[in-house]
Amino acid sequence: MSIHGKKSLPYIVRKVFEIQHKLYQQHVRMCSTGRLQEALKIEDEQDFPKINDLKAQAEETQYYYPVGKSFKHEPDVGEQFTYSQLRVRLAGPHQLQPKPDADDLQFGKLFTDHMFKAAYHKRLGGWQTPEICPMENLVIHPAAKVLHYAVELFEGMKAFRGVDGKIRLFRPELNMARMNASAQRSGLPSFEPEEFIKCISRLVSIDQEWVPHTESASLYIRPTLIGIEPTLGVASSDSALLYAILSPVGGYFAGKQTGGVSLLADPRFTRSWPGGVGDKKMGSNYAGTIHVQKEATKQGFQQVLWLYGDDHQVTEVGTMNVFVFMINEHGERELITPPLNGLILPGIVRHSILGLARQENQFKVTERKITMHELKKAIYENRVLEMFGAGTACVVSPIERIFYMGENLLIPTMENSDSVWIQMRNTLLDIQYGRVKHPWAIEID
Amino acid sequence: MSIHGKKSLPYIVRKVFEIQHKLYQQHVRMCSTGRLQEALKIEDEQDFPKINDLKAQAEETQYYYPVGKSFKHEPDVGEQFTYSQLRVRLAGPHQLQPKPDADDLQFGKLFTDHMFKAAYHKRLGGWQTPEICPMENLVIHPAAKVLHYAVELFEGMKAFRGVDGKIRLFRPELNMARMNASAQRSGLPSFEPEEFIKCISRLVSIDQEWVPHTESASLYIRPTLIGIEPTLGVASSDSALLYAILSPVGGYFAGKQTGGVSLLADPRFTRSWPGGVGDKKMGSNYAGTIHVQKEATKQGFQQVLWLYGDDHQVTEVGTMNVFVFMINEHGERELITPPLNGLILPGIVRHSILGLARQENQFKVTERKITMHELKKAIYENRVLEMFGAGTACVVSPIERIFYMGENLLIPTMENSDSVWIQMRNTLLDIQYGRVKHPWAIEID
Repeated sequence: MSIHGKKSLPYIVRKVFEIQHKLYQQHVRMCSTGRLQEALKIEDEQDFPKINDLKAQAEETQYYYPVGKSFKHEPDVGEQFTYSQLRVRLAGPHQLQPKPDADDLQFGKLFTDHMFKAAYHKRLGGWQTPEICPMENLVIHPAAKVLHYAVELFEGMKAFRGVDGKIRLFRPELNMARMNASAQRSGLPSFEPEEFIKCISRLVSIDQEWVPHTESASLYIRPTLIGIEPTLGVASSDSALLYAILSPVGGYFAGKQTGGVSLLADPRFTRSWPGGVGDKKMGSNYAGTIHVQKEATKQGFQQVLWLYGDDHQVTEVGTMNVFVFMINEHGERELITPPLNGLILPGIVRHSILGLARQENQFKVTERKITMHELKKAIYENRVLEMFGAGTACVVSPIERIFYMGENLLIPTMENSDSVWIQMRNTLLDIQYGRVKHPWAIEID
Repeated sequence: MSIHGKKSLPYIVRKVFEIQHKLYQQHVRMCSTGRLQEALKIEDEQDFPKINDLKAQAEETQYYYPVGKSFKHEPDVGEQFTYSQLRVRLAGPHQLQPKPDADDLQFGKLFTDHMFKAAYHKRLGGWQTPEICPMENLVIHPAAKVLHYAVELFEGMKAFRGVDGKIRLFRPELNMARMNASAQRSGLPSFEPEEFIKCISRLVSIDQEWVPHTESASLYIRPTLIGIEPTLGVASSDSALLYAILSPVGGYFAGKQTGGVSLLADPRFTRSWPGGVGDKKMGSNYAGTIHVQKEATKQGFQQVLWLYGDDHQVTEVGTMNVFVFMINEHGERELITPPLNGLILPGIVRHSILGLARQENQFKVTERKITMHELKKAIYENRVLEMFGAGTACVVSPIERIFYMGENLLIPTMENSDSVWIQMRNTLLDIQYGRVKHPWAIEID
């Protein structure tokens, strides 16, 4: 509620309607006054960060945003959409789907009852009225640029139901900064980050019963921007569709804590390269990886470790950033992750882990190039203590084996007590599930 | 008609229906017996290659197909679709659009009345019944893999109305070979090349009045394959949609013959890289180029010359392959084009020009690496005679200027009489527009 300002009459009416809607979802036909009061009181009861506090985090975004300057719209982007324009068309009770058991959740197979949509048409002056509507198929012209030239990009975020029952997003301003950077590189229109966060929050709020009531699952949020101008020819798209869909997802670690991830590192395949778009979350970065991931799965590996260059630099793992915790050649404990040199995605969990590790200051923390040669040597000399991946979907995921040039390299990630990866994972989960108060977890309505 | 075998009764009935349809398009409501007879006689009157002769060209395809082996379906692709299954649902007279003036045509902005569609669902056993239907929007789930991970690929082909009024395709079997190669690299299902060519031919035949009655224009054919499985997660798509749309396009050279193309060669941007998918016609190869093309246009250049590596190898131009005709360091005349090393698209016009030039044997013809250093030196020494691009959209396009590292390199392409590029262009147009009989031009119904 903190998002929407004072408790005006229209606000209260809307609130009643929303709560009614939620009760409909639970097949309860009567609005409970207790629930309404409870909902209206939240604002006074808590002091977690609110969406409106996001401005205070601008500096942090700027630090994160790799181009080293704060975000600016392209001069000709036109009218922006705002949260205040948002139209909501709720699904009727007959359209609501049953919610799955949290234990049965798989990644990205099931979607909630509603979605967000905003169209952009340059010739109509810019962004059009944003809308929340029942989840529905998109109607796309067969010549739309997204279907031919991969004019498309996305983000991955999660909404978590905290131990206090409240729902929180994790650093959404960083997703929005990255999404706008991807949009500009794709020739697609940028948007006002805060307005979109407010719209997403409202969407999550409407479908809030889909946020799993457990700490082993969450609601995955997929904001997507596609170019829909219906003309052939490799050029910017003057029409676009921004949308967001929601999918309840299980924890990556449920039942998996006994084993780490195995990786195939095959230098014949490259994910990204200097002068390309490897640091943007554009669909085009993924198309070429599917065949290689299929090969890895066939050979019994869970993920691909992407290498780059003649010296076989470690870049990233599947859809995660990668960390190595080792004793370096000077005998120091060092946490290493590849630098933001354009080849890797500037991950938000990566950025958060670096922040936490630097704050705790218990070992050296370095963003630098690490080659397979250096890694292999360190593994042979028993200096590598842990390797792990970091990403929104997996949070933190231990790595225990790399197959490289015909050889199995074993990493003792699971053997260390007092592991860095477990520490990091637990700190992040504590923040995300509201076990500790932290400015990174933004409470929504 | 040669495609469809003997003139059975159903064949003649269909023929009548099609011709009626064409006449409807011309707002003539009566079927002319003369036209019908004319249509039915074509088979006996000509001896151009027919679609059914394609098998004879298998060896050529094999030579072209860069992986060096003939095409094989993935073992688990399932049921194939065939031309005999094709269902046709024609647009009603009220749905037919007016045809544009051939002089007003722009690339890819206008589409014909019909399209082709075939769905693939692994869990239903493979390819489903193919269909020709009125041109219509696609209905796509917002989580479809094509919209997130660029699981998409396409081809570019043209249908030409010859000087004899007959319609021909240019080497369609090569497009199909490349399309199947792209499909396999994208984790999408392959198809029977000949069956799809027959379906495309039927589509062009139905919309034949859209094939411009001029030698300065043609009907562009865009076969497209997209992954439509509605699940998030970077993985192969178990559902796909193969479709083809048609767009009448103007000649690239109309009114442009007085000047060549200017190129921006900026080594900071890379189109493709070893271990990637630069040799496949996947949408993901284009997304990253749009921003750079926009920059080039802003700076006054028509296209981008893509370089690769620290030695700034010339790879390709915009959406064309590139050729340099020069006096080499041994004083020989040499036609050079970059090799099929995975960085460039194996263009069908490129392949045809190499074939023609080798057959004529008037100068050395080489597929080899050429760097900007070598090119610049040769330009300085006045040894570069011509540079040109080759592609389906542009046929052959002369290049007259490259802006590289702050310097304008001028190429005397337009100054030579008896140019190789004009010779090549004319030979190709003669074949495409049926001025000469040649096995590369396949006549359709």
